[in-house]
Parts: sequence; C-alpha cells; structure tokens
Amino acid sequence: MGYTIHLGDFEPFINAIKQGFIFTLTIGTTDASLIPGITIAGAKPELTHFTPAADAEYLLLGRCRVINTVPMTPDGKPTPALITRAALRLVNAGVLVVNAGSRVRPLIPYVDLQGEPGLDITRNDALRRDVVERVVDNGLVLGENLGRSFRALIIGESIPAGTTTAMAFLVAMGYDAWHKMSSASPVNPRELKISVVKRALERAGVSKALDDPILAVSKVGDPVIPAMASIAIGAARAGSHVILAGGTQMGAVLAFVKSFDKSALSRLAIATTRWLINDKSADLIGLVKEVYPIPVVSSNLDFRDMPYEGLRAFEEGFVKEGVGAGGSLVAASIMGFDLGRVKMAILRDYEELLKTLRVQGM
Amino acid sequence: MGYTIHLGDFEPFINAIKQGFIFTLTIGTTDASLIPGITIAGAKPELTHFTPAADAEYLLLGRCRVINTVPMTPDGKPTPALITRAALRLVNAGVLVVNAGSRVRPLIPYVDLQGEPGLDITRNDALRRDVVERVVDNGLVLGENLGRSFRALIIGESIPAGTTTAMAFLVAMGYDAWHKMSSASPVNPRELKISVVKRALERAGVSKALDDPILAVSKVGDPVIPAMASIAIGAARAGSHVILAGGTQMGAVLAFVKSFDKSALSRLAIATTRWLINDKSADLIGLVKEVYPIPVVSSNLDFRDMPYEGLRAFEEGFVKEGVGAGGSLVAASIMGFDLGRVKMAILRDYEELLKTLRVQGM
Repeated sequence: MGYTIHLGDFEPFINAIKQGFIFTLTIGTTDASLIPGITIAGAKPELTHFTPAADAEYLLLGRCRVINTVPMTPDGKPTPALITRAALRLVNAGVLVVNAGSRVRPLIPYVDLQGEPGLDITRNDALRRDVVERVVDNGLVLGENLGRSFRALIIGESIPAGTTTAMAFLVAMGYDAWHKMSSASPVNPRELKISVVKRALERAGVSKALDDPILAVSKVGDPVIPAMASIAIGAARAGSHVILAGGTQMGAVLAFVKSFDKSALSRLAIATTRWLINDKSADLIGLVKEVYPIPVVSSNLDFRDMPYEGLRAFEEGFVKEGVGAGGSLVAASIMGFDLGRVKMAILRDYEELLKTLRVQGM
Repeated sequence: MGYTIHLGDFEPFINAIKQGFIFTLTIGTTDASLIPGITIAGAKPELTHFTPAADAEYLLLGRCRVINTVPMTPDGKPTPALITRAALRLVNAGVLVVNAGSRVRPLIPYVDLQGEPGLDITRNDALRRDVVERVVDNGLVLGENLGRSFRALIIGESIPAGTTTAMAFLVAMGYDAWHKMSSASPVNPRELKISVVKRALERAGVSKALDDPILAVSKVGDPVIPAMASIAIGAARAGSHVILAGGTQMGAVLAFVKSFDKSALSRLAIATTRWLINDKSADLIGLVKEVYPIPVVSSNLDFRDMPYEGLRAFEEGFVKEGVGAGGSLVAASIMGFDLGRVKMAILRDYEELLKTLRVQGM
C-alpha cells in the first residue's frame, strides 16, 4: 500500500478518485509571512510573497516565471511542488490554479476568486468582511461547477505562514490548536507562532470563541482558508468527493466547513505526507478529531535512500508538505503507481532543477 | 435524433462526450461592437460591452450582476445563454468561464488568460502582438490541463460583433469569408460588415493573405479567436476531443488552429444550432469546407410551438446562436435528453426571466 489510513472510511474517496479527478491549487499570501522567523518558505521574508505564484507556475509549467531561479533553497531543498508535479504528471491529471488573494500573481492562467492578500494579523484585520464573503461566494460557484464535472476534487494550497493564520483562526473559533500546528521547518517556531497568534487575537479583540467563520477569517485568518472551504463545500453539494491535500492548515479549513455547512463534511477527507504525520511538534490527527473526525490518510513515500541531501532533508523534517504533495501522492497510489515509480519521477524532475541551477550559476 | 450531422465523422466526439466533458465559455469584447448597426447583442452600442459578462453570470448563476436587469431585449428576446444554461443543467455539466479580454469583467469566478479587450479594427490594431501571444500561451496551458481531465471539451463564446472581426481575420488569412458570416439579427448587416472589414484591412495595410495567425489577430481580429483556438489546441494535444460551439466565428477559430498546429484538427468538430444553419445570408458549411473539413453538426431544436413571441423570434432569425447554445444542445441530446424535455427546461427558465422582469418593472 502506498498510503496509510489513520482515521475514518476512505473507501468512497478511493472509488471517486478512480472515476476521475482534477487537482486544484489554491494560492494566497498573508503578510504574517513577513514576520521574521515565522516561515522558511522563502529565502527572505519579502520573498515569501513570490512563493505561491512560483509554486503554481512550477506545477503547471515545470519552471517559474515570477522568480528567475529554480524553486529551491540555495542548499538544494526543493518546493514540495516538485512532488506534486511529478505525481500528477504520472497519473496525467489536470491542474487548475485558484487565486484566493496573492500579492504576487502567477504568470499562468488561473481562476481568480476576487479576494485580496491577507494582512499581517498582528497589526490589522486579515481581510475586510466583504472580501471574505466574495471569496466564499465565488468559491462555492467554482466548487459546484467542478463538482458537477468530477467525481473527486483534490485541493492543495500554497501560502507561507499559513499554519500561523490557521492556528489563529482555529483558536478564534474555539479550538485548542496551540500545540497542534506543523511547520515547514524541522525546528517548529512554535513559541513565535503562539505569541503572534496571541497578539493577533488581542489586537482583534477576540476574547471568546466566535461562531461565525467569516468573521474569524476576517479578523485573524487568511484568504486561503475560506477559498478552500468554499470550493470544498460547493463540490460536496454537487455530489463530489473532496480531498483536502495538506497538513495542519486543513484543520482550519475543516473547522470553516463545519460551521458554514455541516452537510458537506461527509464528503471530505484529508490526505497528507508521512513527514507531516511524523512531526512530533504537531498533531494533525488530534486536531481533526477535535474539529470533526473525517478520514485522514498519509502517503508512505520516504526519501531515505534519495541520492541528494536536499531531498533526504525531508526525512529530517524540512518542507514536509505543501502544494498538495501528500494528496497527489495518495492519488498516484490509488491510480496504481507504486511509490518506487513516483520516486523515480521526482528524482528525474529534481535533477532537472539542479541542471537549471548549474546553468544559471555559470 | 436531436441533431443533424452535416459534415464528417462525429462518432468519436459522441463517445468522448459520453465519457464526461466540461463546458468552457470564452468571453471577450471588441470595440468594433461600438460601430452603430454592427450588432444587436446589446440595447445600445455601449451596452454591448456588458453582454459577455452578463452572459457568463447568467450561465453560472441564473441571474446577472453587471447589469441590474434580465439578459433579454425589452420585447422579450433572450440571450442564447438561456438555452445553454437549461441544456447544461439538464446534463449536470460543469461550466468554466474564461476571460480572453473583456472591457467589463464578470462578477463570478473565471479563468483569466491575461488578454485585453480588442480595439475597433477600423481605427486601430485589434491587440498588441505580445498580448495575443500571452493569450495563446495561457490558452495552451489551460487547454492542456482541461484536456488531461476530460475526454471532451465544449467551448462556447460571447463577443458582440465577433462575426465581423472573424470575417476580417478570415479574409486577412486569405479565405473568402465575405458572404459566409452570420449575424444575431434576422437582417444580416452584411454590407456594413463588409465595409468595416475593408476599412480595417486597408488601415492595417493587409493587402495580401497573411500566414501568421497571431499577426492577423493582432491586426484585425479579437481576443476570443486566439483564446478558443489555443484552448482547443492544448486540449487536443492532451488527447481530448474538442467541440467548438458556435456559428460562423468558428470558421476563424478553425483557420487559426489550422495554421498554428495542423495536428490538432483531427480532434476538432463544430456544433451549432438549426437556426444558424438555416441562415440564408451565411454559409457555415461552405466556410468550414473552405478552411478545413472538420465535422459539423447542428441541433434540431426549434421554437415554432413556443408560447412566447420572444422565443418564436428565433425562428425568424433573431439571436440564432451564441454562448455555445448549439453545442450544449447537441451534448444534451448525446446524453439522452430528448428535445421536448430540453425545450421544457428552456421554457421554465424563460418564464423565470419574465417573472423577474415583471417584478423589476413594478
């Protein structure tokens, strides 16, 4: 088996995936990513604003346009989009990029939900309420139309510092998310995140649990949470099965769905990576159980025997998840591709990146 | 049979449609629609810029947002989107709106190809060359991804005065389109169109046939032609079957495909309405034969016994086609819905529009 089922009945999702799916990448930014030390998804804080657009471009084209380099750190740790692209190309799946609200827009075709970039939640409300409503409204319409077309939808995300805004949103909605959120770093900057979230909640005047998810996003969230949730709800309403492809941020999406439209929950599952599940500083399963126990699965892919340091770094807790990597891997397994084959495809694409890097370095 | 095959082998398209398709509406504007008398797709020339956005909104939502009224003429002639929406809802098909370049943007989720509105070809080049290239580049990526996801794609259009720019493009590419283009009016303003096209070609300095379709679009075309063509080519390259849903404008799309990537032609067909085929002032079949003989089919739907003047007007040659009406009808027939049932659905939606009109009139 290429994946492990941790929670719930995943069978209906397997059947739906087999009947045809589309992969949707939801991108957005939050200015919380500019807080020094909060995220490693970008070489410098300002560059985190380029990451979602660069991820989207790499996923569709195999190269980036908004940055004139390859999407990896100088020491060779790649974007998780490397995994997503390799897995989705093996199964020949289509990709649709959805912009929930990004400072940097990708230079590729994408669906715009007419949102806005999220502001730094320690200083400002994340988004105006009417903007969140517009994102939700558009997400529902998009989700319904995709749900009519596909038996299954896999929704991934790219938003640096998204685990921090997800934590803030979850706490604002009354969940104990303080010690459950993961990070793209092997050393989770948990205390920093907690202090950011506390400052944000205080600034926003949130002292007891909110029951309005749109208000909670508007106060301390980010554009990706309502975008993913509304696409998922729309697709579920149209009868589709939806796989939320991501880590602990998916807990926030799940919480949004639960309070916006409970009836959609039965068509939702979460798929992630082994690295995310192995993160001792986080607790996705516990979080999902606390919010609402939908199925959770993780791909068994490991990079232990990869011939490059930058890839083996995943085993030490770098990157872990993002751009729907885990969900794409699970889909590839469902479609009959064994992990050895997926790993070879990833390795080949990684070597392409290294080659480009060397050419650029000359 | 709900449709008539006029040309070619439609069998592969029927099989592909049965395996699942998505409907894509490509919208755009050309300032040629401001030339008095050139189009009836808008109550006044300036209002033609709202028509594509309003069509897209009606198709997705059943109501318009950019105009605060219903999408029909004061005397009750509806947008062809009425037909498209009714047919697609019967078969429960998903819709994706694609903006090729529109002055008025719809207030719904849509894919943006990052084009621009077309200028009035009698006064200016339609589009900068780099804009056309960007549209084509984005259209290819979108088409490839949709083509990976679906065995079939139906692509409709909404662009007022699009038959005029299509005529100009076709003539610029060396085809004899002078007496073959249809119109949304029962009295085709053919002499006006011919004089507009002649002025445009003279202004652009096109005195002999061009062989570069991007140049021809840039000189005298509109954003929808390269958008539809590139989506179609991308989807065909991914192995999908593409139905160009529209009237004589599809001749221009076909001509673009033919000179951009001949290998895509074998996966292209045109589906339209009976009203378009019956237009004695035009000749779609002749045009297709001249450009490249791909399959052409038309829905047999008629409105003879409709209890409303505004619908019976289609029999007199009003509206005829647009927003992929013909292609959607053919798809509904392929999916097993007889035309009586489709007609009832159209009638019900039409009566909804009338009801809204009466409420607004109070």
